[in-house]
Amino acid sequence: MNILVTIDANYLKPLQVMLHSLFFNNPDERFSVYLLHSGLEKPVLDTLESGITARGSRFFPLRVEDDCFGTAPLLFYYPKEMYFRLLACRLLPDSLDRVLYLDPDLLILNPVRALYETDMENALYGAAYHNKLSIRSINKLRLYPYEIEAYYNSGVLLMNLERQRREVNEAEIFRFIEENRAKLVMPDQDILNSLYAKRICTLDEHIANYDARYYAYYKLTSSGHFDMDQVMRRTVALHFCGKRKPWHKRYAGVFLSLYKHYEKQAEDEWRRLCGSTLCPPPAAVAE
Amino acid sequence: MNILVTIDANYLKPLQVMLHSLFFNNPDERFSVYLLHSGLEKPVLDTLESGITARGSRFFPLRVEDDCFGTAPLLFYYPKEMYFRLLACRLLPDSLDRVLYLDPDLLILNPVRALYETDMENALYGAAYHNKLSIRSINKLRLYPYEIEAYYNSGVLLMNLERQRREVNEAEIFRFIEENRAKLVMPDQDILNSLYAKRICTLDEHIANYDARYYAYYKLTSSGHFDMDQVMRRTVALHFCGKRKPWHKRYAGVFLSLYKHYEKQAEDEWRRLCGSTLCPPPAAVAE
Repeated sequence: MNILVTIDANYLKPLQVMLHSLFFNNPDERFSVYLLHSGLEKPVLDTLESGITARGSRFFPLRVEDDCFGTAPLLFYYPKEMYFRLLACRLLPDSLDRVLYLDPDLLILNPVRALYETDMENALYGAAYHNKLSIRSINKLRLYPYEIEAYYNSGVLLMNLERQRREVNEAEIFRFIEENRAKLVMPDQDILNSLYAKRICTLDEHIANYDARYYAYYKLTSSGHFDMDQVMRRTVALHFCGKRKPWHKRYAGVFLSLYKHYEKQAEDEWRRLCGSTLCPPPAAVAE
Repeated sequence: MNILVTIDANYLKPLQVMLHSLFFNNPDERFSVYLLHSGLEKPVLDTLESGITARGSRFFPLRVEDDCFGTAPLLFYYPKEMYFRLLACRLLPDSLDRVLYLDPDLLILNPVRALYETDMENALYGAAYHNKLSIRSINKLRLYPYEIEAYYNSGVLLMNLERQRREVNEAEIFRFIEENRAKLVMPDQDILNSLYAKRICTLDEHIANYDARYYAYYKLTSSGHFDMDQVMRRTVALHFCGKRKPWHKRYAGVFLSLYKHYEKQAEDEWRRLCGSTLCPPPAAVAE
């Protein structure tokens, strides 16, 4: 299975935790992990490579050069990494027909194969949206006049690369950004929803992209009573959405103890396999 | 290392979760697990035996016969299992000089060797007390005139068996029970504290017996800021004290997600090793 990750140096440690959870809960799988980045240093890439290959998977770091996107407009607050997900089909090898993009602020709790093999038919993407009324309404207003019935979350994105290569239009993306600079909050996610909503195959959020903030809400609203047992048994990707992250000092949430468990296991395992500690995040973002 | 557990049929599944966490976090250790019981059925003992031996440890179930304690008084609400911990030194083989008793409502999060090898000097027991003002005061009043400076929790009990055989006095225990029937709440723990408090070597509660209900309290009061990272790195035994247990449907606590993670891992691992599911708890106690 092909996995795609795209990070900068601030997210290295969370990435290692996420990858550890992926390997731990998929012990019989071998992955090809593609990393799109714009300038990670060699020691960092070496640590990632040795940890990934020691677990029997393969690692393909792909450095995206500064001039890669040509005339792409840049938004003040967002780095060019925001294009990596949208234009992955241009950046990844032509031989790949499918890839599963995973955010670094995820924990993978169960086997990913069934999710990876979702029948996408003609869709460009597979994604889940968080079906909370408040989220739907805000984004519908914010991105008007684009028709936003469901605001998909781009933290877990199944990509039909073969079809994307034929249908994703760079010029259209760049034009959209130029015209909507003022109202874009999460640019790649906004673009995905504004331009491609109708080409997305909807995944079950409880399985593919469970928002860790909404435990009580899911438990209350799901017809199948999606409680903690169900999360452990069925959720593939647990997503720590929002600004508060479980690696921040003051984080308090239902899944904190679970995250810290995986974080410790990841640290021990990377140290055992690579002989070195995790890539530390810069001090400024450690809080 | 010698481990002692004493359960009835209601606690079989928690016991399997606790043992799984012990094995998972002590991968290089081999244990001798002694089980004192009063009538578990053969299929149950077989499941425990095959799961424990498959992990390279040894299993010694010891059935305690009904007339074992002779003239021991029985308290209406408590089964005779309450004596197992107090009189373990008479029930376990004479060849053992030390054993670590572990409650089934624990998770073992780290290596136990340093705890097991605590220098006990002349003490009979090693135990931790939960240093919350309210707990101290209530028990001091309740067990007056016995001097209760610290009310030790008997969920994790390091036993100096060699010394206990010489100094623990059955007649004294039985007499104490007769005389204090009315005020005993947790008989074995009360006896431990009333009769042997001065012969207990105090263990650090953060390490040896962390009360899962007091996460916020520990974080606030510990000089070393005992936060979730510290729990994961340093706590050996996380204890789900009190009536509300994490396997009850309505349990909500900081460590629920961690417990459910171990519970699922335990189920999968016992099934993998024994080819059978966990011993189910009786329906009546499942809620």
